[in-house]
Amino acid sequence: MIETDALVIGAGPVGLFQVFELGLLGISAQVVDALPHVGGQCIELYADKPIYDIPGVPVCSGRELVERLQQQVRPFAPTLHLGQEVSALQPQPDGRWQLRTSTGQAFLAKTVFIAAGVGAFQPKRLRLEGAEALEGRHIHHRLDSLPAHGQRVLVLGGEAPAVTAALELAEAGAAAQVTLLHRKDAFKAPTELLARLQALRDAGRIQVEVGQPLALRTADGGLQGLDILDAAGQTRPVAADHLLVRLGLSPRLGALADWGLALERKLVTVDTARFETSLPGVYAVGDINHYPGKRKLLVSGFHEATLAAFAAAERVFPGQPIHLQYTTTSPKLHERLGVSAPTGD
Amino acid sequence: MIETDALVIGAGPVGLFQVFELGLLGISAQVVDALPHVGGQCIELYADKPIYDIPGVPVCSGRELVERLQQQVRPFAPTLHLGQEVSALQPQPDGRWQLRTSTGQAFLAKTVFIAAGVGAFQPKRLRLEGAEALEGRHIHHRLDSLPAHGQRVLVLGGEAPAVTAALELAEAGAAAQVTLLHRKDAFKAPTELLARLQALRDAGRIQVEVGQPLALRTADGGLQGLDILDAAGQTRPVAADHLLVRLGLSPRLGALADWGLALERKLVTVDTARFETSLPGVYAVGDINHYPGKRKLLVSGFHEATLAAFAAAERVFPGQPIHLQYTTTSPKLHERLGVSAPTGD
Ligand SMILES: Cc1cc2nc3c(=O)[nH]c(=O)nc-3n(C[C@H](O)[C@H](O)[C@H](O)COP(=O)(O)OP(=O)(O)OC[C@H]3O[C@@H](n4cnc5c(N)ncnc54)[C@H](O)[C@@H]3O)c2cc1C
Ligand SMILES: Cc1cc2nc3c(=O)[nH]c(=O)nc-3n(C[C@H](O)[C@H](O)[C@H](O)COP(=O)(O)OP(=O)(O)OC[C@H]3O[C@@H](n4cnc5c(N)ncnc54)[C@H](O)[C@@H]3O)c2cc1C
Repeated sequence: MIETDALVIGAGPVGLFQVFELGLLGISAQVVDALPHVGGQCIELYADKPIYDIPGVPVCSGRELVERLQQQVRPFAPTLHLGQEVSALQPQPDGRWQLRTSTGQAFLAKTVFIAAGVGAFQPKRLRLEGAEALEGRHIHHRLDSLPAHGQRVLVLGGEAPAVTAALELAEAGAAAQVTLLHRKDAFKAPTELLARLQALRDAGRIQVEVGQPLALRTADGGLQGLDILDAAGQTRPVAADHLLVRLGLSPRLGALADWGLALERKLVTVDTARFETSLPGVYAVGDINHYPGKRKLLVSGFHEATLAAFAAAERVFPGQPIHLQYTTTSPKLHERLGVSAPTGD
Repeated sequence: MIETDALVIGAGPVGLFQVFELGLLGISAQVVDALPHVGGQCIELYADKPIYDIPGVPVCSGRELVERLQQQVRPFAPTLHLGQEVSALQPQPDGRWQLRTSTGQAFLAKTVFIAAGVGAFQPKRLRLEGAEALEGRHIHHRLDSLPAHGQRVLVLGGEAPAVTAALELAEAGAAAQVTLLHRKDAFKAPTELLARLQALRDAGRIQVEVGQPLALRTADGGLQGLDILDAAGQTRPVAADHLLVRLGLSPRLGALADWGLALERKLVTVDTARFETSLPGVYAVGDINHYPGKRKLLVSGFHEATLAAFAAAERVFPGQPIHLQYTTTSPKLHERLGVSAPTGD
């Protein structure tokens, strides 16, 4: 059980800036994210695309923005708990909140910041009849859950995560057969990965099938392969003992919906002075929240995180006045930021 | 009379970003500022000091921030009207607003954005008895209002504006005598200016007096000089026909207080969905506004300007739905920004 002044759910751009604003006010934070890395939508959905409307940043990519935010929070060294979803939030008699993640980590927090964006990113599932029953046994999403020794593995997907998985499987040499299935024979991945893929295809160690999955082929509760619709419009079988589904990630609101928060169309209702939810000490910032006039933009999430931090500071330091200080001129903030007092006047 | 969809009062950081957000929505703006340059407080008060809490900008100086914002608004080429204060705001029968500046420029605007910060920056006055009566005749704030031919001029101030004025007067050679008065014999100005000052002092073309102004010496309604308190604690006279007061700028709410806006302790009351004032079509953003939870921070001003732009778009394009578009992916926004469609996926 980790005790903390602040727990931030979501390490997207707004969750990261939340850590920064809390840090300026002298509050250190723990951060949980379902993804194995920080950055939320900026990394998952548009890492290499340019953003033009961050104030003072005429242009930067999603990845650059996240790198800049990571640099900005560095003085406050938040503890990151990645690859786990916050699944439970429960009030304690003393006004604190108890939280638990999908990997069993528990927290006791004075304040909670829901910076969950469009929800926790989850691997896209294969939507075929009978798929659910085979999940975890014959249908997988992660390489390490695959008991692939001597088995025929079919990797589904056309982008870097699928290509990488096929390469790793073939290069490890444990699988009996590695096949990559995509709707066309063109993969979206860095050149270096595409070159390795071509080499392994030339060596006969990776097969590529072109088509779309139509149905699972099963027998006695086990998997035999897939029926696919190929480029010529014909249905034909592709043999496999295991499927590795790497079709990307899609967000899911998940457990959050059951925490007793006032919601409006799957968004968490907040006020605009404190960005507090209907639960005291629980704030919601960024794409996940709703209030009159709300626009799902980074510039708004950053403002929301700022005011939520001031509201939380009243809770963390009860009875102490919370003054606005400028990062430009405040020796206390310079100390927290780890920068020496600036010279000049 | 200039007709415009949007008039922005104040070219501080928030006024500049207001122009950007309006531009994204297809609204072009005219901008007025009392100062002869853009940047507001960032330039006037802390041009060379570091700011640490702009999201995604781990550190930049006030001047750098303003340069970045200027670069960001470049695609929207706002017309700047500098060195003039907006002095009047009046409703028109058709719902538009008529505005007038201190230099007589008039505007007819569909929407008005008050981004006036802490008010219009005005030269700091000399607070001595009788000073007001001599303003404009013997007490001046700008070089060009000084009829200095053959006269003894006393320049007051210890920073670059005072030093520059003394240098220009001495180098022009029209004044009978140029004296610089400051409370100590140490001037805060770029090295190059200090070197020129030293050379002119050595040549006897600029005198430096050290002390603080105590009283005006007048006779027959004209000026004879100042009594100063010198470093040794003695009072003594310094002769002068004209004073050039260069003690810096201080902000002043000014005419704005008389426009019929709902105010709260000299700040303009707004709602948090549209950042609209009590006058329809008139918005207030940045340090000048007030709402529950308000903090006078850049990050908040940028958010306010964003939502105010969306609200104004409903007024400028009545009946048209205003959709949120991402700068990252919207071809229409790319066109407005003047960037070619980004490559990649
Ligand atoms: C293609 C695209 C282009 C965009 N372009 C722009 C643009 O130009 N300008 C702009 O301002 N905005 C843009 N946006 C929007 C911007 O990306 C979002 O506003 C921003 O990402 C919201 O940040 P966030 O931190 O609130 O949420 P997110 O970025 O969604 O991050 C939320 C994080 O929370 C995690 N999470 C959720 N639930 C849980 C849970 N229960 N437990 C643990 N972790 C959880 C998620 O895994 C995720 O990492 C764009 C969005 C997209 C998709
Ligand atoms: C020393 C110092 C350090 C700071 N450090 C930070 C920091 O670290 N982080 C942070 O977020 N904020 C900081 N701030 C605050 C930040 O500078 C302000 O929030 C910001 O400047 C507000 O921008 P603005 O555009 O609303 O107003 P301003 O910057 O005040 O600009 C307003 C402009 O409007 C003009 N104007 C006013 N009235 C009229 C009129 N009637 N007609 C024409 N023009 C008019 C003025 O001349 C001025 O140029 C600091 C402020 C100071 C003084």
